[in-house]
Amino acid sequence: MDGRVLVPWEQNRENAPAALTVEVYDGQGEPPADVLDDVVFYVVPYGRVQRVGLMRRMPRLRAVQLLTAGYEHVLADLPRGVRLYNGRGLHDASTAEHAVALILAAQRDLPRWAADQQKHVWNPHYTRSLADCRVLIVGYGSIGAAIEARLLPFEATVLRLARRARPASGVYGIEHLHQLLPDTDVVVVATPHTPETEGLIGGTELAALPDGALVVNVGRGPVVDTAALLAEKGRVRAALDVTDPEPLPPGHPLWGAPGVYLTPHVAGGAAAFYPRARRFVDEQLRRWAAGEPLANRISLDES
Amino acid sequence: MDGRVLVPWEQNRENAPAALTVEVYDGQGEPPADVLDDVVFYVVPYGRVQRVGLMRRMPRLRAVQLLTAGYEHVLADLPRGVRLYNGRGLHDASTAEHAVALILAAQRDLPRWAADQQKHVWNPHYTRSLADCRVLIVGYGSIGAAIEARLLPFEATVLRLARRARPASGVYGIEHLHQLLPDTDVVVVATPHTPETEGLIGGTELAALPDGALVVNVGRGPVVDTAALLAEKGRVRAALDVTDPEPLPPGHPLWGAPGVYLTPHVAGGAAAFYPRARRFVDEQLRRWAAGEPLANRISLDES
Repeated sequence: MDGRVLVPWEQNRENAPAALTVEVYDGQGEPPADVLDDVVFYVVPYGRVQRVGLMRRMPRLRAVQLLTAGYEHVLADLPRGVRLYNGRGLHDASTAEHAVALILAAQRDLPRWAADQQKHVWNPHYTRSLADCRVLIVGYGSIGAAIEARLLPFEATVLRLARRARPASGVYGIEHLHQLLPDTDVVVVATPHTPETEGLIGGTELAALPDGALVVNVGRGPVVDTAALLAEKGRVRAALDVTDPEPLPPGHPLWGAPGVYLTPHVAGGAAAFYPRARRFVDEQLRRWAAGEPLANRISLDES
Repeated sequence: MDGRVLVPWEQNRENAPAALTVEVYDGQGEPPADVLDDVVFYVVPYGRVQRVGLMRRMPRLRAVQLLTAGYEHVLADLPRGVRLYNGRGLHDASTAEHAVALILAAQRDLPRWAADQQKHVWNPHYTRSLADCRVLIVGYGSIGAAIEARLLPFEATVLRLARRARPASGVYGIEHLHQLLPDTDVVVVATPHTPETEGLIGGTELAALPDGALVVNVGRGPVVDTAALLAEKGRVRAALDVTDPEPLPPGHPLWGAPGVYLTPHVAGGAAAFYPRARRFVDEQLRRWAAGEPLANRISLDES
């Protein structure tokens, strides 16, 4: 007996190779004890991070698949010897789409038109464009590349920056940040939160941007220094899907700061995510049944 | 003596071929009488439609360049024998950008987040995406093609529809409209207002769309039937840069209609327009000096 596979969506069960014993577990309630006893491959339901702990009650478990890119939150519960796979790439389309939505909304004054609509005011005025802008993507990985692909047909110029320069690929290294900022119209932050990136866009960096430049953050809140952004008093604009602190408490000055537009950490989880995640789980199950290596394995230091 | 050329921007004078006598006229006040006497080529300043009438006081005039695509408003004042050129294409980048901004704003609930921000509410929820949507462009001309180019990297499917089918180019004819609507997530209207297009998206067409479909209008207001849209009561959503009537008067039911987002006819005139218009005027002056045919000539029936 090969043991059971737990998948989050019915479609995954339907599409699974016939050799696998697959059951759907969407995170509501708990699977029966006899199912837990038998699970060898567990796909943790999306948005059900509290269901990670079930791993400890799966004695035959050999592999865990997450649907998030982050995995640090499961390490404490991961039994020794169990392989871990993450959801890297599954949020790229959704996140990149939201990043461009924020850029366009800020450049074309959509929040102002929304406020005018509420007041029944028809008051057209000239706005900025995305066309002809120089956009600097800070954190040029798979999401950064997805953002770039969406920006290029808008006749914008895209500059790429990552931790380490990759001159052959046209990617600047972090050491070039300060020299690029004075000619940048839009900075898009798409980095994870690490000790290296915390406060990466701080007072010095914001001061280096030209008047009216836009900072977009779809990475993690602490990469942009909130106090430094507030100190700009609207000279530099911002469109932030992630904030520091997060969630942003009522009364926080960022809510009403001039030129600051906020969305509540919704970049990655829109409709685009689900079909991509389901297809990815299908493909992982196919690999599992065929004895092939699965994608997105996380290297664990099991010292 | 070759006569004078009137251009709207100083940059055009600086870039003009040395053989031309070029003066800047931006539409403020009037040029002196001796200048009017001598003008052979007049570029009508943008947004200064009332300066069209000056043509009648330019006895040597041979050519008029407009910076708008529409030209019907100048025909009554155009002296016989004067050639007319329009600004077709100059607004494409700005208009296409705004169309995509409206689609993304509607799909990603940006007006809702803007309202939540005003109330200091952090309340994330799942939204639609543009990814995986089927987008039907009604009026597939140069603006439609510019919209399509911007949509494709978002992993959307684009369908093209024009007055006449062009099967070799993958363009459906207007006779296919009703059969395409039931599978359409987003309809983008980018047609001019003609007797053929008035009310083109009416009650029958809206009823054919699936629940939650989005109608975007960056063409002309009367192409979408306002009463029919209101009768949908939010079943079909809309993001409209142009309305019927326009401007929309205070108290009109469209202002507060469920699922309707409005911008006040600002698609074409954003920052993207100006550099493109200046470059186009430069190029027209180069052609004029070289004795080449100018671009964008309007065929006039001088019977």
